[in-house]
Amino acid sequence: MRAEIISIGTELLLGETVDTNSNYLAGQLPLLGIDLYWISQVGDNQLRLVEVLKRAWQRSELLLTTGGLGPTEDDLTRESIAEMFGEDMSVSLVLKQEIEEFFSQRGLEMPLSNLKQATLIPSASAIHNIRGTAPGWWVEKDSHILIAMPGPPREMQHMWELEVQPKLRQRFAGTVILSRTVKTFGLTEAAVDEMVTPLLSGTNPTLAIYAKADGIYLRLTTKAQSQIDAEETLARGEASVRSILGEYIWGTDHDTLEGVVGQLLVEKGLSLAVVESCTGGLLAATITDVPGSSIYFKGGIVAYSNEAKVACGVAPGLIANCGAISLEVARAMAQAARAYLKADIGVSTTGVAGPNGVENKAAGMLYIAVDDGHTSRVIQGNYPGNRPQIKRRATTAALFELKKLLTAVNDNRKT
Amino acid sequence: MRAEIISIGTELLLGETVDTNSNYLAGQLPLLGIDLYWISQVGDNQLRLVEVLKRAWQRSELLLTTGGLGPTEDDLTRESIAEMFGEDMSVSLVLKQEIEEFFSQRGLEMPLSNLKQATLIPSASAIHNIRGTAPGWWVEKDSHILIAMPGPPREMQHMWELEVQPKLRQRFAGTVILSRTVKTFGLTEAAVDEMVTPLLSGTNPTLAIYAKADGIYLRLTTKAQSQIDAEETLARGEASVRSILGEYIWGTDHDTLEGVVGQLLVEKGLSLAVVESCTGGLLAATITDVPGSSIYFKGGIVAYSNEAKVACGVAPGLIANCGAISLEVARAMAQAARAYLKADIGVSTTGVAGPNGVENKAAGMLYIAVDDGHTSRVIQGNYPGNRPQIKRRATTAALFELKKLLTAVNDNRKT
Repeated sequence: MRAEIISIGTELLLGETVDTNSNYLAGQLPLLGIDLYWISQVGDNQLRLVEVLKRAWQRSELLLTTGGLGPTEDDLTRESIAEMFGEDMSVSLVLKQEIEEFFSQRGLEMPLSNLKQATLIPSASAIHNIRGTAPGWWVEKDSHILIAMPGPPREMQHMWELEVQPKLRQRFAGTVILSRTVKTFGLTEAAVDEMVTPLLSGTNPTLAIYAKADGIYLRLTTKAQSQIDAEETLARGEASVRSILGEYIWGTDHDTLEGVVGQLLVEKGLSLAVVESCTGGLLAATITDVPGSSIYFKGGIVAYSNEAKVACGVAPGLIANCGAISLEVARAMAQAARAYLKADIGVSTTGVAGPNGVENKAAGMLYIAVDDGHTSRVIQGNYPGNRPQIKRRATTAALFELKKLLTAVNDNRKT
Repeated sequence: MRAEIISIGTELLLGETVDTNSNYLAGQLPLLGIDLYWISQVGDNQLRLVEVLKRAWQRSELLLTTGGLGPTEDDLTRESIAEMFGEDMSVSLVLKQEIEEFFSQRGLEMPLSNLKQATLIPSASAIHNIRGTAPGWWVEKDSHILIAMPGPPREMQHMWELEVQPKLRQRFAGTVILSRTVKTFGLTEAAVDEMVTPLLSGTNPTLAIYAKADGIYLRLTTKAQSQIDAEETLARGEASVRSILGEYIWGTDHDTLEGVVGQLLVEKGLSLAVVESCTGGLLAATITDVPGSSIYFKGGIVAYSNEAKVACGVAPGLIANCGAISLEVARAMAQAARAYLKADIGVSTTGVAGPNGVENKAAGMLYIAVDDGHTSRVIQGNYPGNRPQIKRRATTAALFELKKLLTAVNDNRKT
């Protein structure tokens, strides 16, 4: 089963949009044991689009396209597929009704231009799109499959997960390629590489290391005849990695640090509040990305000015004496977070988000404090990068400190 | 001059790496008046790589490749180019010496594997790489040009800027392709499409519409003999778009909504504070993404619990009577933002981030309030999507309301 991905849209050729769709799909295919040999991007031009589709149809058994299913004149994917197969497009009344309903639920009338999204060719069946007005097309012919999906990532990914992937999985049960990602924080890529050197030469599972915004990831991959074999191999590999990197590991696979922290807070029945300066709201925003976080997250203060720090309970004298970016103020902010919102645990950040220095401190210099009323811990960080990267990195570091504190609470109770 | 980009590396086909190189180069070519028709990604496989190169050589006059120039066995770009042209590779003593120097400057000996990076074919000249050990290849034959650059973005971009782009600019001085993006919020893609229908049939500039997380974008593109001609055509096109969509437009090109709002706050000398609930800190985090935002942003409260809403000044009775997700509480929160941090303008959000409903209100239902002491405005929104999307959309809507308020302040002063 050779697969090919075609991403459609002139914005990709003008450098305006990074093609994350092909990256997403490329990461999905190994899980189905499907090999991917080709990816290409093509503009909204029917001549070239048909040419790319024809070549793909010749050399690959599975074609996945994204984009060009919108309602406007430059959306030409449907027209191009119809041309390639020499079939006529006609309006499906069922699809028309669905699109009309999509609009009427939002109190709108369907614009006439959306009618073309209700079209099909005889070889195509529609793929349901609950997040937008563009149904996908599923075409099967001569033992080849073409699947056309919309371009907006949130529509495409939802369609893939709910409609396309389950159908393909049923069809192509056989070899299983499985991988597991182990996520760490607090070490450089080179340090991780050195620590796991003995594992890197292994072939089953293979091990790859890569740097992400929230730490260094290690990916174990195995290919096996059955799901059970694959899972056993991965479990063995993961145990080896854990024996080396234990304390730096915060999660696996789809875990997020904010999700892991949220889970620990729920388990311990503890509540959380934050007072953040240099992260400017990103710490609270990340914590509240977790559904149900309102159970444990009382709220936060973005104390961007000194007035705001004082308003929530930091002593003005402390800021005057030690500076707003200091170990002492970080600790006082974490304590203020607990007191102001009556939370069990307070977390704070204060530092320089950049690009310019503040109080003679360079961009990226910051303090993070965690406080649960028994333990108060402050770390100093010094992170490279631009402003959003420093904010992101500081947020990750704060969540990692919080995770360590929560794990310790766990251990204390056990003993 | 038709160009084609080929990104080389199996990691691209496994979904491990997003191909940002092609995006970067795609954005560069219009500035040279070069049309890009094709982008493709191919793995480290000589058979398929040669096939892709041959097709590109047939249909395009300029081929840009990135990747596959490393020292390891699976780096096959040089070998594949040599095979395509039927030429032999041999070691260049000059290149060998440069690579040896690269290592010796770092106190290292050149590993033997790096020797292959010193090879050339007769048709190729080397392109200097000051950031790494892989020189590029510049091949000219039969009025076609092939330029092979390394894969690491920092090496590739440096090589492009210092070596490749100036040479190409000299060669292809002449046509200029320029584009301008006009950014709107508050309308659906189909609605924008309908409103600008008369402009869509224009060929100079051409107009394309696409949906982004922060609204609907319109891209005007023109091709001209000179920079001045191109800019005049774009200015004319932009004026037409503005005459139709005026009030929905918040910026152009590289503008961000938070940047536009920040600029307006600085110009008016006004300060800002926020009290946010459903956006959970994302509104403050987005505002503070702007360098220098500490000048006008006093801070914010993430009033995720009712206690936090009360703590910053919302009357408990109001929450009890109207519900935390109500027009009245949104307005009180915006007023509390102003009062609590002594800011000129307060902005608030309250609503349901999802995935589950709250207070009998569905996910995506929310209120946004802006208040400057004279004007208090509350809008109700109803946004589809998952939790991060709803937060992002609500943040954009809040910034757009703030932008409208700030523009009105402007207009009032003028009159």
